[in-house]
Amino acid sequence: MYGVHKQGEIVEMLEELRIGNITEKPKEQAFDKNDPYANDPKRHPAIIPASSKPFNGEPPSAILTDNFLTPNDLFYIRNHLPVPDVNLKSYKLDISVQGPGKFTSFSFDDLKRKFHKKSTAVVLQCAGNRRSEMVKIKPVKGLNWGTSAIGNAEWSGPCLDDLLKQAGIDIDQVTQKHILFCGMDKDPAGSPYEASIPIELARLLKRDIIVAYEMNGQEIPRDHGYPVRIIIPGIVGARQVKWLTSIKLSNEESMCHWQQNDYKGFHSSIDWNNVNFKSVPAIMELPVTSAICEPIEGTDLAPDADEVTVKGYAWSGGGRGIVRVDVSIDGGKTWDSATLSPPKQPMYKTFAWTFWEATLPIPKNHKGKVEIICKAADLSYNVQPDSVEGIWNLRGVLSNAWHRVNISIPKS
Amino acid sequence: MYGVHKQGEIVEMLEELRIGNITEKPKEQAFDKNDPYANDPKRHPAIIPASSKPFNGEPPSAILTDNFLTPNDLFYIRNHLPVPDVNLKSYKLDISVQGPGKFTSFSFDDLKRKFHKKSTAVVLQCAGNRRSEMVKIKPVKGLNWGTSAIGNAEWSGPCLDDLLKQAGIDIDQVTQKHILFCGMDKDPAGSPYEASIPIELARLLKRDIIVAYEMNGQEIPRDHGYPVRIIIPGIVGARQVKWLTSIKLSNEESMCHWQQNDYKGFHSSIDWNNVNFKSVPAIMELPVTSAICEPIEGTDLAPDADEVTVKGYAWSGGGRGIVRVDVSIDGGKTWDSATLSPPKQPMYKTFAWTFWEATLPIPKNHKGKVEIICKAADLSYNVQPDSVEGIWNLRGVLSNAWHRVNISIPKS
Repeated sequence: MYGVHKQGEIVEMLEELRIGNITEKPKEQAFDKNDPYANDPKRHPAIIPASSKPFNGEPPSAILTDNFLTPNDLFYIRNHLPVPDVNLKSYKLDISVQGPGKFTSFSFDDLKRKFHKKSTAVVLQCAGNRRSEMVKIKPVKGLNWGTSAIGNAEWSGPCLDDLLKQAGIDIDQVTQKHILFCGMDKDPAGSPYEASIPIELARLLKRDIIVAYEMNGQEIPRDHGYPVRIIIPGIVGARQVKWLTSIKLSNEESMCHWQQNDYKGFHSSIDWNNVNFKSVPAIMELPVTSAICEPIEGTDLAPDADEVTVKGYAWSGGGRGIVRVDVSIDGGKTWDSATLSPPKQPMYKTFAWTFWEATLPIPKNHKGKVEIICKAADLSYNVQPDSVEGIWNLRGVLSNAWHRVNISIPKS
Repeated sequence: MYGVHKQGEIVEMLEELRIGNITEKPKEQAFDKNDPYANDPKRHPAIIPASSKPFNGEPPSAILTDNFLTPNDLFYIRNHLPVPDVNLKSYKLDISVQGPGKFTSFSFDDLKRKFHKKSTAVVLQCAGNRRSEMVKIKPVKGLNWGTSAIGNAEWSGPCLDDLLKQAGIDIDQVTQKHILFCGMDKDPAGSPYEASIPIELARLLKRDIIVAYEMNGQEIPRDHGYPVRIIIPGIVGARQVKWLTSIKLSNEESMCHWQQNDYKGFHSSIDWNNVNFKSVPAIMELPVTSAICEPIEGTDLAPDADEVTVKGYAWSGGGRGIVRVDVSIDGGKTWDSATLSPPKQPMYKTFAWTFWEATLPIPKNHKGKVEIICKAADLSYNVQPDSVEGIWNLRGVLSNAWHRVNISIPKS
């Protein structure tokens, strides 16, 4: 059975139906031919697993601020299904249009040689990044991510717009309302992972969507979509389809589970008995966020420390640049301005993240414990909400409250 | 002296320098030739003044939700200077480009007859809307607005892009970084009100910026910019220059006080001693907001009331549609979903507001008092911050915390 089902609430549900136990046979071999995850790639030992089948994992937070471009092997991994093993020679990317029945197909070689290669630094972030803060309020369904289900890489490949043009499609003229992206990762019934974006969003991002075959100048690792994935800057990770095999212009949005009945945001009184997934649109652009990467929760400073240097990331969806990161060391009573190290990007297309840093004086009356808080404002002056309570939701997505880290200053 | 200076902190500052009083002469006439505000237009008696010279005022909140398009005479008025009295026959709109020295001029008749008339419903909102909630925390500099320094009107006129094209300017090709809009309202030294937007924003809104000569199908009232004003959808009121007389493409942004040293957002530890207006960009797109228009603060329900119908508006900058309005009648412990009445606009270009309504049961343990709260989420799932404390700033702008209204249920 697929590992994705081995979750608390499903075990609980099945527990009611249990009629007895079968004695377990001793395991004779580690490699199971029937395990669809057996051929998954190896992962960097620093990656902290959030689940093993499918594999999901994030790097330690302190690693994130070491590199503006997150190294490929330290980039968070978010898989919904087993990792496909793709043969480059037989790889095809199909482009089709519902209605007129237009159909074009590109080989990997076509993608590399027939089109201008565009490179852009783009943040990908899981909708569930920082879910672990929501779990503390009340259980939610989803992986228990810390603050590192986010990464920033330079992605290279043709613009989607160029491929569509080559296929005879003018994105500004088509009547279809959605663009569907289909992956090669499949569930046991053979249904692939799929996502779609509204055509309006595709038009807004016309020259920014990349059909990527490189991640930080290297071939894309298998865990991140080898050989080709879609990169749609400024939006949630769930639509950044990996192992991309077809692009389709359609009148309807994708009917995939993860488009229709999963990645959506509700208020905190909606539970699994009254949720109506049709009532809100699928998450696309993500809200403004920031997090403290250093020091990490529970750090002990030196007994005579009189200041602490705090570092982190900030980012917002829709390409909105970060205008301010505010940092507090007294629980939000007073604030300091962090120094930003922004990339040279146009403010209205800031798809990469912004690093920030502040050196804060330890309050005199610290009593051995100090809480550090950060919060960011983006170009539209949207801010992070104060509390996790106010945004808690049954799926634990969109967790972007003020980020808090507690550190200690032990007595000498 | 200009009425704009008659503010608490300036009176206080001058008080220290007072050496005595001159006996006041009895007023002989109401009309003062030397008063630059004497020729201001009359205002609707329902408009609640926030200041008289310059005149600023807002309608009662309960009026707002009566009409999707706010009637012209009930639209909030935000003037920085005396209202110009413009002669339509001599009116000219100049368009120029820094560097090449291109210069074109259009008469009012040119604007009306030579170009396609575009009509769009667009919300204008003062950066200081809901400032009165910030004032309760700590004094700020600015007009004491309630929740109604916002309105939604249908604006008609040529697209800015069409005028620029006619003047030989391709907005996608120009090297200048800003577009300046200059008004005909002037301070005592003769300097006009002016604002600018970055060229990237102008490109994003290419076909959406309107050089408007009509408001809700009528000529624009004098208070709202007769005969012509600029309408830049999704951004702050301060850049929506009224009595528009020139448009200039420039390498630098406007040096006007209100662009450089006023409408910007800071954290709550920034005061007038340490503020650095250069450190953040001028406010353009506004953050997501919502407010309760009915019932109003202090309303007494009937003693036997077992439910209350709550109505209000929600809106977000950047054309981002409203996906959800959450309403609570128990101080935020539980939430209900409001019913939205959205206009038929594309979700990524929702420039008008969204009305919402919910009928909530009065909690059984109400003890005579009930607090109603609303909060909205927009298409990017940005949400309103929980508290005013967290966003308080020295200018009292960007006040978009959860909106709270207290009502009573008296004993029978």
